[in-house]
Amino acid sequence: MINEQNKHKSKMQKYKKAVDKGISKASKNKNLVIVLTGNGKGKSTSAFGMVMRSLGYGHKVGIIQFIKGQQKTGEEIYISKYHPEVFLYQMNTGFTWNSQDKDNDIKAAENTWQKAKDLLQNPKIDLVVLDEITYMLNYKYLDTQDVIHAIQNRPANQSVILTGRMACQELTNIADTVSIIQDEKHAFKSGIKARKGIDL
Amino acid sequence: MINEQNKHKSKMQKYKKAVDKGISKASKNKNLVIVLTGNGKGKSTSAFGMVMRSLGYGHKVGIIQFIKGQQKTGEEIYISKYHPEVFLYQMNTGFTWNSQDKDNDIKAAENTWQKAKDLLQNPKIDLVVLDEITYMLNYKYLDTQDVIHAIQNRPANQSVILTGRMACQELTNIADTVSIIQDEKHAFKSGIKARKGIDL
Repeated sequence: MINEQNKHKSKMQKYKKAVDKGISKASKNKNLVIVLTGNGKGKSTSAFGMVMRSLGYGHKVGIIQFIKGQQKTGEEIYISKYHPEVFLYQMNTGFTWNSQDKDNDIKAAENTWQKAKDLLQNPKIDLVVLDEITYMLNYKYLDTQDVIHAIQNRPANQSVILTGRMACQELTNIADTVSIIQDEKHAFKSGIKARKGIDL
Repeated sequence: MINEQNKHKSKMQKYKKAVDKGISKASKNKNLVIVLTGNGKGKSTSAFGMVMRSLGYGHKVGIIQFIKGQQKTGEEIYISKYHPEVFLYQMNTGFTWNSQDKDNDIKAAENTWQKAKDLLQNPKIDLVVLDEITYMLNYKYLDTQDVIHAIQNRPANQSVILTGRMACQELTNIADTVSIIQDEKHAFKSGIKARKGIDL
């Protein structure tokens, strides 16, 4: 028993050494570009988790949602109720398969991008979330180079999170962190309704 | 131009039909077991995003964190500052490679599991987060069957989110949704320090 304890201890000591080495190597202080992509559930959710963390530290946050259904989401209700100081702007045309009007969608995307650009030039904002922006680039509603340029020239104290399926190479190239979220199982596919507080 | 608009419209109409069909098929009303696993960044973050959504709807939330470093995280600061009504319990032994004491870790895991069990029997709680619980099962610090049984016998109005790497088959079997998060790129690996409000 004591032997087993010692074995465990020495194994964990070795592991700790490796963890500590990794931590000591990570010495660069730099704000991040994070891309959350993939077909799975939890990209925007994860972005909102980081918003929560940032607010915990008293950081200033701006959120732009490029695709938004008509229905209010939990995070939207939450932010407006508890954090009216967070700048939250939504494109509000709904999904493009709902609006079915391309010219109008492009105009809305461009207007929304102006708001995003303002945030990306504002050194008072520590965290910018560009939710579902990948679609705007993939549909060519926004100019990719223009978006890349604005992100790369943002204030040094600012981190940016970009979400959406199929993030293009140009985005992942400039990202410090790229997380891919895949569904192994999805309740929706087995006929379970989207749940308030979980999906919505 | 008008022709292109019409083409876009008809394509989007078709797409909307498919989306609507999916939504109408998803008619079961059921609370969920969600597993967030994989080696990538964003599992706990995503769970906290769902906590935010749930709080937006005024749901009651309980969070149990099975692995916790010594350092306070943004979400912890956030919850205690803005939502003291959320039940948040942390095992507080730190990572097992820091404590290096297996007996002590097992005792701590069992005590923490008691708190989790209380939540899983409490119909006043709408959402239970069991953060990093997969490690407790993989290390055999907790009995998998005991955990499965408690989750399956929870109140009907309750959803449960389980996070951590390498979720075992028993967990994914009872889950309604399993999301796998993989890193394609991770800032930490290219020498960038963990950032407050993003990683912490």
